[in-house]
Amino acid sequence: MNDHPSLGLDDVVHQRVRLGILTIAHEARRVEFGYLRTQLDLTAGNLSKHLSVLEGAGLIEVEKGYEGRRPRTWITLTPAGTTALADEIGRLKQLIARVETTPED
Amino acid sequence: MNDHPSLGLDDVVHQRVRLGILTIAHEARRVEFGYLRTQLDLTAGNLSKHLSVLEGAGLIEVEKGYEGRRPRTWITLTPAGTTALADEIGRLKQLIARVETTPED
Repeated sequence: MNDHPSLGLDDVVHQRVRLGILTIAHEARRVEFGYLRTQLDLTAGNLSKHLSVLEGAGLIEVEKGYEGRRPRTWITLTPAGTTALADEIGRLKQLIARVETTPED
Repeated sequence: MNDHPSLGLDDVVHQRVRLGILTIAHEARRVEFGYLRTQLDLTAGNLSKHLSVLEGAGLIEVEKGYEGRRPRTWITLTPAGTTALADEIGRLKQLIARVETTPED
């Protein structure tokens, strides 16, 4: 029997909030901090904490700048982040396939 | 725009190890502690900790008994556990669909 697909999941990517961040960053290519916060219903502190984990793992780039006079923070997936998200999705599909091939009662 | 699918994920179920436990319990209906430990490559302590979380949430039943003279612990999904796993799978599919409908570069 092959390794169970859950063994291949990486907590850095799989964790609920971080998976949300990566998914939205993937959709938007470049996403603003405040938008992520609203979409994911997070406090700024909580979002910052998860962004640090992702940035530390090299999965996102965080860029600070201004929009007019307002300070803004933008988040972009790195190529490693795109790969990590694709790996996660691949593992989840394997896991879903295993659940769905189990006969129901 | 609807709520992001990651908002509907429940950490009790989504957490990597617990998702593995629920998936295997779903496949096997009734699964032995040692089998789970091997399949998921966990220490007994770590597995016990996650089983407690799932049992506390009413998602599994833990039954202790003997196989011959050997003490054994069996794990069974409850109906609530089956529903929770199905909910998780449904959310993951929504999330995968969003990732996969994003045009690639």
